[in-house]
Amino acid sequence: MPVPSHVRLVEVGPRDGLQNEKQPVSAAAKIALIDRLSAAGLRTIEAGSFVSPKWVPQMADSAAVLAGIRRLPGVSYPVLVPNMTGFEAALAAQAEEIAVFAAASEGFSRRNINCSIAESLDRFAPVVAAAARTGIRVRGYVSCVLGCPYEGAVAPSAVAAVARRLSALGCYEISLGDTIGVGTPAAAQAMVRAVAEHVPVERLAVHFHDTWGQALANIHACLELGVAVVDGAVGGLGGCPYAKGASGNVATEDVVYLLDGLGIRSGVDLPALVAAADFISRELGREPGSKVARAFLARTASEGAA
Amino acid sequence: MPVPSHVRLVEVGPRDGLQNEKQPVSAAAKIALIDRLSAAGLRTIEAGSFVSPKWVPQMADSAAVLAGIRRLPGVSYPVLVPNMTGFEAALAAQAEEIAVFAAASEGFSRRNINCSIAESLDRFAPVVAAAARTGIRVRGYVSCVLGCPYEGAVAPSAVAAVARRLSALGCYEISLGDTIGVGTPAAAQAMVRAVAEHVPVERLAVHFHDTWGQALANIHACLELGVAVVDGAVGGLGGCPYAKGASGNVATEDVVYLLDGLGIRSGVDLPALVAAADFISRELGREPGSKVARAFLARTASEGAA
Repeated sequence: MPVPSHVRLVEVGPRDGLQNEKQPVSAAAKIALIDRLSAAGLRTIEAGSFVSPKWVPQMADSAAVLAGIRRLPGVSYPVLVPNMTGFEAALAAQAEEIAVFAAASEGFSRRNINCSIAESLDRFAPVVAAAARTGIRVRGYVSCVLGCPYEGAVAPSAVAAVARRLSALGCYEISLGDTIGVGTPAAAQAMVRAVAEHVPVERLAVHFHDTWGQALANIHACLELGVAVVDGAVGGLGGCPYAKGASGNVATEDVVYLLDGLGIRSGVDLPALVAAADFISRELGREPGSKVARAFLARTASEGAA
Repeated sequence: MPVPSHVRLVEVGPRDGLQNEKQPVSAAAKIALIDRLSAAGLRTIEAGSFVSPKWVPQMADSAAVLAGIRRLPGVSYPVLVPNMTGFEAALAAQAEEIAVFAAASEGFSRRNINCSIAESLDRFAPVVAAAARTGIRVRGYVSCVLGCPYEGAVAPSAVAAVARRLSALGCYEISLGDTIGVGTPAAAQAMVRAVAEHVPVERLAVHFHDTWGQALANIHACLELGVAVVDGAVGGLGGCPYAKGASGNVATEDVVYLLDGLGIRSGVDLPALVAAADFISRELGREPGSKVARAFLARTASEGAA
């Protein structure tokens, strides 16, 4: 199968990224980041999370963030919602898209959200139903699709079962997450193939963490199967809570560079995206976590010096 | 074409890596590094360079390094040689394999070695002939195969022409180098296909720099074409002289992780290789430059703490 001619990028930096950064970031900086991302051409930007601030203090200001951003036409700003309480809060904040999340590994589900996979799906059913009644789109995440920090290997059939359930509940798209970044291309392809037997590949997204440096190789392997939605976090935001000091989400700019090189359109302007990575990295007091941002900024600096 | 069942890794860290590090490294540390690499299972380890110390001071101690290493049976320790003077020095140091290098871009050839591509090849002809007479194997490098810092895009046919000349001179293997790390998978495949029309794929190696984060995706794409020799530098040693602060060679341990995940044998022990990356990074006074080393060491540290 030829790679797709167009890929939709889902920017998860302001949520999945910043949620896993130790350094707190102000609502104003989050708003500035999100507005820079939409201006750079991103059309889906995860803007926050309505999880209890007791568990995720970094996202406690999500309502303020949603209120402060400049909502561009044609851009979706999904927020993460764990239950009906979160859904009500998202609704009050005028969210137009939400995301729910389940694990492909029982051990991860129990340790991360304190219930079985089946219980988590039962908890989402009324959320997705309520969303449907109010015209809110729902994206579904499956975590640990290529490995679990507690259980090791995860069977593709287990991923497919959860993806099928989320799809049946009403999620318009299922994002398959290699939460701990352990996968390699053949395993990623086997997993996507197993899921695509139950959910059409057009409704699948891939979500790779670059903890073991494999994210772009995996993404390219999934493009070869026709996957056309890819999650990324500007600047490679977010660490890995299961390996202190290791890196987290694949950087969106690394993905854009790959897509540009392959002649696949994403609608994203690389220089503007790198500027957004530079902006948020300065807010965090560190270098951008991505090779593309570092190479781009190094080249710009040397051109400026020449 | 299925990916190969076995890949030979060519470790270039002690030469291509350390040559591009600012921090000087003692001959003793280089010797310790090379002996750790052979103990980790690497079977080709580029050990130094007999280029004038005026141009490459980091490699001025290559004779001492060759004299100090524990030469394991079945392991080759090639050294870079630019001309007959270098060849005589390599011979005196009891080198059993040498490497010569030409560019696929005229602009790079002129700026890097101060002569045209054709002149550089003419200069290598007596070196390769002398090597043949003394039973020394010669590896050929082609640089700038996917882009040139001075000329931009490089045509696959230009790469093929240089590779064919090096092969005709008598090089047993041609290593195709993306010197500035700008390539992406489709371009890498197109280049390898063009070269393979003139030099059998069994005699080709790929040499990627990870400056723009694309190295593993490119390597996987080349494995899909049957390429079975891959260059890497332990710890991602070496920067990019054309973009200060950007990263250089793909890390060997990132490649080994990829190969292990694909079920491709390399004979290299990942924990021992990461230990070598940790050793040389400490010598340089910095963190290992690779995601695999950082994730591995972070995991080990958290297990030790638990």
